[in-house]
Amino acid sequence: MEVTRKNYKECLHTVYSAIEEADFLAIDGEFSGISDGPNVSALTNGLDTPEERYTKLKKHSMDFLLFQFGLCTFKYDQTKSKYIIKPFNFYIFPKPFNRTSPDIKFICQSSSIDFLASQGFDFNKVFCDGIPYLNQEEEAQLREQTEERRNQHANGVGTPSYISPSSSKGPSHVPEEHKDFINKVVEKVESLFSNDEKTLDLEPCTGFQRKLIYQTLNWKFPKGLHVETMETEKKERYIQVSKVDDEERKRREQQKLEKEQEELNDAVGFSRVIHAMSKSGKLVVGHNMLLDVMHTIHQFYCPLPEDLQDFKEVTMCVFPRLLDTKLMASTQPFKEMITNTSLAELEKQLKESPFKSPQVETAEGFPSYDTAQEQLHEAGYDAYITGLCFISMANYLGSFLTPPKAYISARSKLIEPFFNKLFLMRIIDIPYLNITGPDLQPKRDHVLYVTFPKEWKTSDLYQLFSAFGNIQVSWIDDTSAFVSLSQTDQVQIAMNTSRYAESYRIQTYAEYIQGKQQEKEKLSQTAKTWGEDGWVKSHYTSTTTTAGFGYPRMRKRSISPVQGDQGTKGADGWNQYSYQDGTGNKKMKTDGEQTNAVESKTSEGWLKTTDASDSAGSSPVPDERSPEGSVPGNDAEGTVTWQQAPAAHGRKGQKNKKKKSEAAESTTSLFEVPEVW
Amino acid sequence: MEVTRKNYKECLHTVYSAIEEADFLAIDGEFSGISDGPNVSALTNGLDTPEERYTKLKKHSMDFLLFQFGLCTFKYDQTKSKYIIKPFNFYIFPKPFNRTSPDIKFICQSSSIDFLASQGFDFNKVFCDGIPYLNQEEEAQLREQTEERRNQHANGVGTPSYISPSSSKGPSHVPEEHKDFINKVVEKVESLFSNDEKTLDLEPCTGFQRKLIYQTLNWKFPKGLHVETMETEKKERYIQVSKVDDEERKRREQQKLEKEQEELNDAVGFSRVIHAMSKSGKLVVGHNMLLDVMHTIHQFYCPLPEDLQDFKEVTMCVFPRLLDTKLMASTQPFKEMITNTSLAELEKQLKESPFKSPQVETAEGFPSYDTAQEQLHEAGYDAYITGLCFISMANYLGSFLTPPKAYISARSKLIEPFFNKLFLMRIIDIPYLNITGPDLQPKRDHVLYVTFPKEWKTSDLYQLFSAFGNIQVSWIDDTSAFVSLSQTDQVQIAMNTSRYAESYRIQTYAEYIQGKQQEKEKLSQTAKTWGEDGWVKSHYTSTTTTAGFGYPRMRKRSISPVQGDQGTKGADGWNQYSYQDGTGNKKMKTDGEQTNAVESKTSEGWLKTTDASDSAGSSPVPDERSPEGSVPGNDAEGTVTWQQAPAAHGRKGQKNKKKKSEAAESTTSLFEVPEVW
Repeated sequence: MEVTRKNYKECLHTVYSAIEEADFLAIDGEFSGISDGPNVSALTNGLDTPEERYTKLKKHSMDFLLFQFGLCTFKYDQTKSKYIIKPFNFYIFPKPFNRTSPDIKFICQSSSIDFLASQGFDFNKVFCDGIPYLNQEEEAQLREQTEERRNQHANGVGTPSYISPSSSKGPSHVPEEHKDFINKVVEKVESLFSNDEKTLDLEPCTGFQRKLIYQTLNWKFPKGLHVETMETEKKERYIQVSKVDDEERKRREQQKLEKEQEELNDAVGFSRVIHAMSKSGKLVVGHNMLLDVMHTIHQFYCPLPEDLQDFKEVTMCVFPRLLDTKLMASTQPFKEMITNTSLAELEKQLKESPFKSPQVETAEGFPSYDTAQEQLHEAGYDAYITGLCFISMANYLGSFLTPPKAYISARSKLIEPFFNKLFLMRIIDIPYLNITGPDLQPKRDHVLYVTFPKEWKTSDLYQLFSAFGNIQVSWIDDTSAFVSLSQTDQVQIAMNTSRYAESYRIQTYAEYIQGKQQEKEKLSQTAKTWGEDGWVKSHYTSTTTTAGFGYPRMRKRSISPVQGDQGTKGADGWNQYSYQDGTGNKKMKTDGEQTNAVESKTSEGWLKTTDASDSAGSSPVPDERSPEGSVPGNDAEGTVTWQQAPAAHGRKGQKNKKKKSEAAESTTSLFEVPEVW
Repeated sequence: MEVTRKNYKECLHTVYSAIEEADFLAIDGEFSGISDGPNVSALTNGLDTPEERYTKLKKHSMDFLLFQFGLCTFKYDQTKSKYIIKPFNFYIFPKPFNRTSPDIKFICQSSSIDFLASQGFDFNKVFCDGIPYLNQEEEAQLREQTEERRNQHANGVGTPSYISPSSSKGPSHVPEEHKDFINKVVEKVESLFSNDEKTLDLEPCTGFQRKLIYQTLNWKFPKGLHVETMETEKKERYIQVSKVDDEERKRREQQKLEKEQEELNDAVGFSRVIHAMSKSGKLVVGHNMLLDVMHTIHQFYCPLPEDLQDFKEVTMCVFPRLLDTKLMASTQPFKEMITNTSLAELEKQLKESPFKSPQVETAEGFPSYDTAQEQLHEAGYDAYITGLCFISMANYLGSFLTPPKAYISARSKLIEPFFNKLFLMRIIDIPYLNITGPDLQPKRDHVLYVTFPKEWKTSDLYQLFSAFGNIQVSWIDDTSAFVSLSQTDQVQIAMNTSRYAESYRIQTYAEYIQGKQQEKEKLSQTAKTWGEDGWVKSHYTSTTTTAGFGYPRMRKRSISPVQGDQGTKGADGWNQYSYQDGTGNKKMKTDGEQTNAVESKTSEGWLKTTDASDSAGSSPVPDERSPEGSVPGNDAEGTVTWQQAPAAHGRKGQKNKKKKSEAAESTTSLFEVPEVW
């Protein structure tokens, strides 16, 4: 269902009830751009920390507009054994509500716009008919302003509470230069009382004069008048004075109040849908959804906080349960079976055995999507497809139960390991952002931080480190990069060799991080200890509460941070990831070819790795012996039998050696010379 | 005629010939926004210097997109005694040409977008079908890249000039890791020669590999092959090798060359129209055209220079003759008769006596505009209306000739005084930016520069200066403003009084300017002397040439900078301007009401002053006794009789006293309290 400003109000209750009845919600957003940085490598470095990545996305992506929001609600019908779906496609535009509301500026990126245009995107629906919105602060401000104006204008209502402290209750002070003007107004109003006219239109005047008129008339004629500000066709404001009896006056006041209230709600606009989703506490599914979540919060709740930890808190307030299908598909047991996790490809693969296309039916009154006739990159359709992918994968998990189950509900414990972990694009060793806990902190003691003259290219770095075998280069900026060595014990050799270098400088990763932290001058850092398995175990305590959200805080989750089999990390901390796309080791600025397509989040086919989520892939699977409890129907699940990897932390199994050698086979493709021609 | 990417190529020659045959060109632009500053007062201060204003516009307006360009060509038909017009409405969008072309980001301002939407603007025509463009540097880069690629790929053409120095002429060096790959390719090509196939499609590979293939095949098989890079549906690049005889190979090379050339021209796109306008040297008419000119140069020529003087030079290179109808309408003899110089109002007033609606006819094949059915804010229509206004005003000047003339050509000396003076919005005492000479530099020795705590509002300043009678406040930022006193001799009193002030600080305007210039640490300033008449006479010499423009530099104009009757400046340098809109003396940030409408250039009705161009209004009129020379037909003009103001510089006539007292009558409205309610 397409929803614009034109049909928004009549649709709102349909949206509300769809959310209310749903088992889970799938979402997708389309933006006016992805990155305002010079190129994508400025935005993503394969060795970004989650903090760095968050900061970059916040800095380089939030000035774009989320202008199409797809919501598809999924409700399981037990009798039909299928999902009933209600897809919505909202067009969003920050149309200024009035002269006091913010005049939003947003950036458009030509390549993104052009891409959407090529997909048949209707920009007029956004710019002409987009639904407005306010974030929480803007909404509060507007309500306050309305309240204030109401108090100032309160004429004859009589209840002192309606008169704000600032408005005088006696005769207001009229500055000398306005006395003539005000006296004339009073004369006119007096003559209104003595003639047959019902209303009197005063000349357009300034806001200050209008204030004086309100105050004076309110004091001089406490009864029998209704005073209202009107606008001429030329948008000049003037005051209309009407003779009214007491009842009429009250009726008009009431009308005005209701109208104001309605206008306010209209201004809050699309944010009300997000509020409803949030309040419902339902599982929200998205594909590669970090940017969607960031934009949604940024536009409809509050400007994103500086700090990643604060962002996580806010996110949990707004969306207490998130699931990213891209992360799910890149995780065990799916990652071995799914070669391409882009939404379009994922959807295709999940139609094939051993997966099953879910049975779905579009609810009556909703136009039905046809997956054969792809409408990708329409947010509503993408949300729908994302929901299908989630169902297929969830149901597949059911096949491991004894006895196998064909339907796994959105409330099943089977899917909880995937909750609140948002896929991180192109980070070599951290597959996801963990919203409800500390992030994975892989050892990076085989990584060097190298600075050099800006003329250097990737080949110069390969040259420099040619003695160390395979290396992996992750550009940071023009004059620095991370170089990952294949052997940690080579680090010291490299450091020693570089001691007398003049043109370049080498630091260990630890030194680099230390330097950055010193720069930040952060006073209190959470104590961290290196675990045996190479992940840092933070003392994670989430005690701070982000104020300003009236939505239920997430109840403490019982899921501990996923710290699975770290077997694929060898003793030297080295692990091979095969990025078929060379972005990680490619200096974008030197190649004369901007990979516009790559920059576009919507064409995410570029990330062909299935290894990036290695560590997540070996997440421990929670004990599934207990039945699902609150789920209606006979939904108890048997023993889980699909645990391929042992759940013990930090254990280095025999399997790993095989994995490692497999990985080694593919290393040559890692060090491909960048596509500069 | 609507022109989009779809019909652009077939229209281009129609556009060229319309420009070629025209007597003058009228233009208008629509933008995605006006100001990215917090509010309009940040962009315009009533006492900005031209340099400051230019810098602000450059900083706060150039990131918007000029996305609709209106061009209306006017050609006078002697036999019909009417103008034949050809209106064009171009939709512009920086669609990336290929992966190497810049991925432009631009800002959209909600209020501007919403305004255009309300006027029925078709955004899909911009974003889906907009004509691309390149500025001069981007065009040069692209041509260079194409040339380089052509040289690199030159296979078998044989002429050494086709091979760039960088490409090896012998066997190219194939890195160890690619040797296998290249050998296999060579094997495949060899077998192509021995089988019946005509073409061979290689596997998609990297750019570096493609380069190696080109080099190797070129060396191994100098004859009999055509090698070309193709793209799969998935945008993967691969190489196609075809067996060809010599003739076929040459034909293909030629085809490829022509195709590349055409693609290049397509990429230059809309810039070609601007180039044609520029080359023609025709008079270009616009209404309030400073932003149009800035955007046009910025988008289609080069990023705007830092310095105003350089901007003037560039402008003269691109548009050697400009005329701003808003400036013309605010100047003698029109300013007394025209109360509102907004385009829509101007057009209406110029239909009434003593003006005459010009006789125009739309050329065959062009859809005709109906001025009764207003289509304002479509750039093509606005350009058309602007041209009509120009004709009406120009013809009106003819009525002062003896004998009167009904038709005044665009080449008439009568209109030369209005050339190259672009209207400056809301500067109290500088009506225009003088593109071909030094700008007016009014005495501002009655002006104080005041700094104060950011809590201060306009009323605090009135309070502070209450002893000095009428003052005028021009906000600079949160903590500073200009305060204009009505008497210059009060300046010293104010300075003395403020000596012991703690919360605020007062400087004279001269001190302020000195401070700013010291900040700038500009080394060589042109020597300036104060003239008796209060204008600075700069030693203006335009010797520097902006490189990079292949277009004819303007021939030295014989028009000296307009320095007319300065009579309206009283002995104290004080002059009253009645701004009906209070922006000049209103602190935007404190009032909670952003005047969005005001910020929009397209809704320019806000500027109701007819006094802002006071000084320009008394421009000396050049001697009109000489016939027009090159104009075909009997176009000689008689003695000018409409000179109302004496042309002598600096003379203070009796008339001024009357003017001054008239102005004084209107001062109360100047000091209105800002509209904060």
